[in-house]
Amino acid sequence: MSPTPGTPSCVTAVDTYDIRFPTSRELDGSDAMNPDPDYSAAYVVLRTDATDASAGLEGHGFTFTIGRGNDVQVAAIDALRSHVVGRSVDELCDDPGSLFRDLIGDSQLRWLGPEKGVMHMAIGAVVNAVWDLAAKRAHKPLWQLLADAEPEWLVRQIDFRYITDALTPGEALELLRRGKEGAEGRKAQLLARGYPGYTTSPGWLGYSDEKLTRLAAQAVADGFRQIKLKVGADLADDVRRCRVARSVVGPDIRMAIDANQRWNVDEAIQWVTALAEFEPYWIEEPTSPDDVLAHAAIRKAVAPVKVATGEHVQNRIVFKQLLQAGSLDVLQIDAARVGGVNENLAILLLAAKFGVPVCPHAGGVGLCELVQHLAMFDYVALSGTIENRVIEYVDHLHEHFLDPVVIREGHYTAPTAPGFSATMRPESIAEYTFPGGTFWAADLETQKKGHAA
Amino acid sequence: MSPTPGTPSCVTAVDTYDIRFPTSRELDGSDAMNPDPDYSAAYVVLRTDATDASAGLEGHGFTFTIGRGNDVQVAAIDALRSHVVGRSVDELCDDPGSLFRDLIGDSQLRWLGPEKGVMHMAIGAVVNAVWDLAAKRAHKPLWQLLADAEPEWLVRQIDFRYITDALTPGEALELLRRGKEGAEGRKAQLLARGYPGYTTSPGWLGYSDEKLTRLAAQAVADGFRQIKLKVGADLADDVRRCRVARSVVGPDIRMAIDANQRWNVDEAIQWVTALAEFEPYWIEEPTSPDDVLAHAAIRKAVAPVKVATGEHVQNRIVFKQLLQAGSLDVLQIDAARVGGVNENLAILLLAAKFGVPVCPHAGGVGLCELVQHLAMFDYVALSGTIENRVIEYVDHLHEHFLDPVVIREGHYTAPTAPGFSATMRPESIAEYTFPGGTFWAADLETQKKGHAA
Repeated sequence: MSPTPGTPSCVTAVDTYDIRFPTSRELDGSDAMNPDPDYSAAYVVLRTDATDASAGLEGHGFTFTIGRGNDVQVAAIDALRSHVVGRSVDELCDDPGSLFRDLIGDSQLRWLGPEKGVMHMAIGAVVNAVWDLAAKRAHKPLWQLLADAEPEWLVRQIDFRYITDALTPGEALELLRRGKEGAEGRKAQLLARGYPGYTTSPGWLGYSDEKLTRLAAQAVADGFRQIKLKVGADLADDVRRCRVARSVVGPDIRMAIDANQRWNVDEAIQWVTALAEFEPYWIEEPTSPDDVLAHAAIRKAVAPVKVATGEHVQNRIVFKQLLQAGSLDVLQIDAARVGGVNENLAILLLAAKFGVPVCPHAGGVGLCELVQHLAMFDYVALSGTIENRVIEYVDHLHEHFLDPVVIREGHYTAPTAPGFSATMRPESIAEYTFPGGTFWAADLETQKKGHAA
Repeated sequence: MSPTPGTPSCVTAVDTYDIRFPTSRELDGSDAMNPDPDYSAAYVVLRTDATDASAGLEGHGFTFTIGRGNDVQVAAIDALRSHVVGRSVDELCDDPGSLFRDLIGDSQLRWLGPEKGVMHMAIGAVVNAVWDLAAKRAHKPLWQLLADAEPEWLVRQIDFRYITDALTPGEALELLRRGKEGAEGRKAQLLARGYPGYTTSPGWLGYSDEKLTRLAAQAVADGFRQIKLKVGADLADDVRRCRVARSVVGPDIRMAIDANQRWNVDEAIQWVTALAEFEPYWIEEPTSPDDVLAHAAIRKAVAPVKVATGEHVQNRIVFKQLLQAGSLDVLQIDAARVGGVNENLAILLLAAKFGVPVCPHAGGVGLCELVQHLAMFDYVALSGTIENRVIEYVDHLHEHFLDPVVIREGHYTAPTAPGFSATMRPESIAEYTFPGGTFWAADLETQKKGHAA
C-alpha cells in the first residue's frame, strides 16, 4: 500500500518469524541449567510505507530463546501488533519512549507480567526494532545516536516508575550531562581501539578438557584478557576444569565462572570457596536471578571473588534492588531480556549512580550484535570508562547477521553501519524458520525416513 | 481411543480454551491500574482413557487474565502439552510434584522466565488441573485431600530450590506435623462455620458514591466484617470515598485499601498517610510486586496501617524475600499466578515459618473457587487458626462454575464436591470462547452492523 502524497508515513506491518538454529547437536551453549539449547530468535520486522529518503527502511528486533517456547514468544509479539501498526514513523523515531510507555501500560497485557517474562521480552523486541529503525533513519549506528542525543531527550526516554527511590529524573540528567564531558575524545578512542571483550567459547560444560585447553589457549592468542567457564554441575569436574584453564591461561588472564542459577545460598558459598584457589574473577548467576537478598549474602561470603548477574534479571526494578542491597560487583545487562533500549538506559543510569561496572551478557543469537551498542554508549557518554568493563563474546551464529560484530585483538570494533545491527540475512531466515524453513523441513523429512527404516 | 485392558490409563489430550467475559462494559473490576478488564481464563482440560472407577474424570485448570493476551497464555499452555500427554494417570495423581518439577525444569522453556510471567502461570494452570483430577479420583475436595495427606508426602510435593535459606525440608516437615495436632477438630469447625471472607464488591474505582454506599451497607448486612476499596487514581476522590465507606460501615468493620501497584515509595507513604484518618486496615499492593525493599520501606513508614501484597508476586522466591525483609503484615497468595498447588504449599509453609497471616487474593474468574481450598487446608492442617485471616470475595462470574463458592453470613462454606472447584459449565465455555463462541460471534456481528449503518 502506498500513502497519499503528503501523508505522513506509518508502520504498515509487524511481521514475525520463529527462527531456530540446531545448536544442541554440537553442545554449543551447554551449561549447568541448559544442557541442550537450540539457540533461537522470535524475530520481528516493522515495515513502513515511507516514500521519503527512508523508503524501504525496516526496523528489526528479536527476543533470544533457547528453543521450545520460541512460538510462545512469537505469539506475545503478535499480541502487540495493534499498538504498532498505523503509528507514524516520525513520531516513533522521534520518541521511541512513547511506544514503550504504551506497551508496558497496556493494562490487560500488563496482567501477564507485570514487566517480566514472555510479555516483557516481547515488548523489548518491538521497542528495539523501533530503535533500529530510528538509527537507520538517522544514518547512525545506535551507540552513536544515543551518545549524540541530548541528555534531556534521553531522560524522557526513561520510565522512572518504581525507581525514583534510587534515581530521580534530576539525578539522571546530571549523570548524562557529566557524561558529555570528554565524550568526543572517547568516541575517537572507541573508533580507534574498540571495546574490550571476553570470551565464553572455551568454557561450555559439554566440552572435553582437550577442547577447553585448545580454545582457552586460542582465546589468549586472540588477545582476550578474560575467559569464562561454566560450572555448577559437578564439583570435582569443575575443580579439574578450572585447574586446566588456569594452567593454560596463566595468572594474568581473568577467569570468570558461571553457575547459571544452579545453587541455593549455602551451596553457592561452598562451591565458590572450593574453587577459590583458581582465583576466579567473578561468580556469575550463583542463584536465582530473582533473589536480591541471596546474592547479597553470597557476595559477602565469597569476597574477594566478585558476584555478577543480570542476563535473567527481569527489569529495572530488580536491578535497582540488587544495587540498593549491595548484591553485585558487576552488573550484566542483556539487550533483549528487559523492555528494550529504554529500560536499559534506566539500568545503565542506575549502575552509574551506584558506581557498579556494567559488563554485558551476550552470545546466543545476535545478543553480541545488539548489546555492544549499549556498552559503547555507556563508555562514550555515561560512565566514561572501560576500566573493569568487558562485553561477553561468543563465536556463534554471527554469520546470520548483515552487520555481524567484528572482533579484533580481543576488542569489539565499533559498528559504523546505521542501525542496531539487528538485521538477519534473508537467506538465514528462509533456512531456519521453524518448522517450515528449508533446514527444518529437510530435517523433518530425514527423521521420517529414519522412523520408516 | 480406549486402552488395552490392563494397560495403565494415561492422559490422552490437553485441550485448551480462550474464554473471555465482557466485564469491561459494566466497569466491574476497575481499579487504578486496570480501568477496563475483560475477565478471562486460559482454560485447560486434561482428558484420560481411564476405564476404572475414574472413567470420564477430567482435570480442569486455568490461568486468570484480564483480556488481551489471553491467547498468549493459551499458547503457553499448549507449549506444555508434550510433557503431559501420555503420562500415567496413577503416577500423576500419586505425585503431582513429578510433573511440576518436569515443567519448571524444562531448560528451554525455563529461559522464558525463569519461573515467572506467562510461562509460569501456564505451568500453574496445568499443575492445578492435575490436582483437580487427583482430588476427583480421591473423591475429596482438594482442601481435604491436602489436609488428610501425610506430612512426608506434602514435603515431597515442594521444590525447595532457592528457599532453603529460609525454610528447609526438615522445618517444613516439623510445621506440617504440628499442623496435624487438632486438625480433626478444626475440620469439624470448618464444615460447621466456614472460613471468613471479605468483600471487594463495593469498592471498584469506577463505581459512583451512591453504588459504593449501597454495596458497603449490603456487605455489612450480609455478614462481612471487612470490605476493601480501590484507591490510587486521585487522592481527593479517595479521601471522599474512604469517608463515605467508613461512615457507612462504622468503626468496627475493617476497611482495606488497594492501590494495585500504582505508587513509587514516596507517593505510597504520602497517600496512605493522607488516608490514615479513615483507619484503613491494610494497604494492598502499594507499589511494584517485584519490589521487596520498597515494601519494607513503605511498611516501616505507614504503620500501624498494615502492608499486604501477593496477587502479582511471581513465585516462592520473591515471597521468601518479602518475608525475610519484613516487607509484609499480610501475605496474599493467588491460586493461579504461581506454579500451582505445589508452589503455593511452599508459600504457605514460608508464611507459617515467619508467622505472617495468609489472606488470599481472589475474584476474577474462578479465583475464589480455587483459593478457598488452599486457605482451608492452611487452617485445618498448617497454621491452625483463622485469626486475622480472611479470603477475598468478589461476587462475579461464579455462575459459570459447576461447583461455585457458597457464601453464608460472610463466610466461605467448605466445598464438599470432589476436586478443585475448577470446572466451568460446558455451556459457558461454548458461549464465551473467544472469538468463536456464541456471545463473541454475535457481538462481532453487531459491531459489523454498527459500522455498516
